[in-house]
Amino acid sequence: MNKKVPIEISARHIHLCQKDLETLFGRGYQLKKIRKLSQADDFAARETLDIKIGSKIIKRLRIVGPVRKETQIELSITDAVGLGINLPLRLSGNIKGTPGATLIKSKKKLKIKRGVIIAQRHLHCNPKEAKKLKLKNGMSVSIKIKGARALTFHNIK
Amino acid sequence: MNKKVPIEISARHIHLCQKDLETLFGRGYQLKKIRKLSQADDFAARETLDIKIGSKIIKRLRIVGPVRKETQIELSITDAVGLGINLPLRLSGNIKGTPGATLIKSKKKLKIKRGVIIAQRHLHCNPKEAKKLKLKNGMSVSIKIKGARALTFHNIK
Repeated sequence: MNKKVPIEISARHIHLCQKDLETLFGRGYQLKKIRKLSQADDFAARETLDIKIGSKIIKRLRIVGPVRKETQIELSITDAVGLGINLPLRLSGNIKGTPGATLIKSKKKLKIKRGVIIAQRHLHCNPKEAKKLKLKNGMSVSIKIKGARALTFHNIK
Repeated sequence: MNKKVPIEISARHIHLCQKDLETLFGRGYQLKKIRKLSQADDFAARETLDIKIGSKIIKRLRIVGPVRKETQIELSITDAVGLGINLPLRLSGNIKGTPGATLIKSKKKLKIKRGVIIAQRHLHCNPKEAKKLKLKNGMSVSIKIKGARALTFHNIK
């Protein structure tokens, strides 16, 4: 089957649950939207956090809103190399057994026990699009980028 | 057909012709080998050059020996972005109509009229291996890298 889809690279970011957001920013805090992202209701928030993983710190990691059910940090393999650790390749939300981190907002610190992942390649589609593409959740697809240096990405969930 | 081959990324480098080598390093100069490379008789030389392309300079570009028929500079797309120029994707040796550069060795400078390329994906194989793989010069193949983030590279010449 041949169907064109937009391709995107997601920069490293963090999702917060409401509880962790309030611990760091105060009771009833609401994230401030600076830019809508391409997927559903996601937005880049004005707020950022420093993240300590092992002995190293990633500064000013962008928070992506709205709040999620559980706090999750999505980094790249390049970040993992820089941190000197192995990070698991996971689909968003599947964070059982993943490493934790310390979230830092000036003097406030919050340890999370798990949630640091490298996001696995994935295809976003709403139920209507999925039906049109004859795709079901959990299926794996390949996507080819054309051009002189053409590439096919496999294992896209 | 399924056949395993080693995959390598070539770092940016420069090949010099004997004439340009002697202009910069002196008459009868021989490159000093610091490390054998994987392909045929290629080696990383101790000598490096600074390269000026447009208004920007790439410092300490490694020379790869032995000398070639014509001087050629092989960079990456990332280098081209850094230089702020478009560079053509070419197979080694195919440098007609490509941009030039200035080669700098302390106070000595040498302008070359052409030879700056981004190396096109290619497969090295000697005649015996080519026969075994049923490949001929000019053919194009695809190579798949296995794993959780599997990739297929196309247009490998």
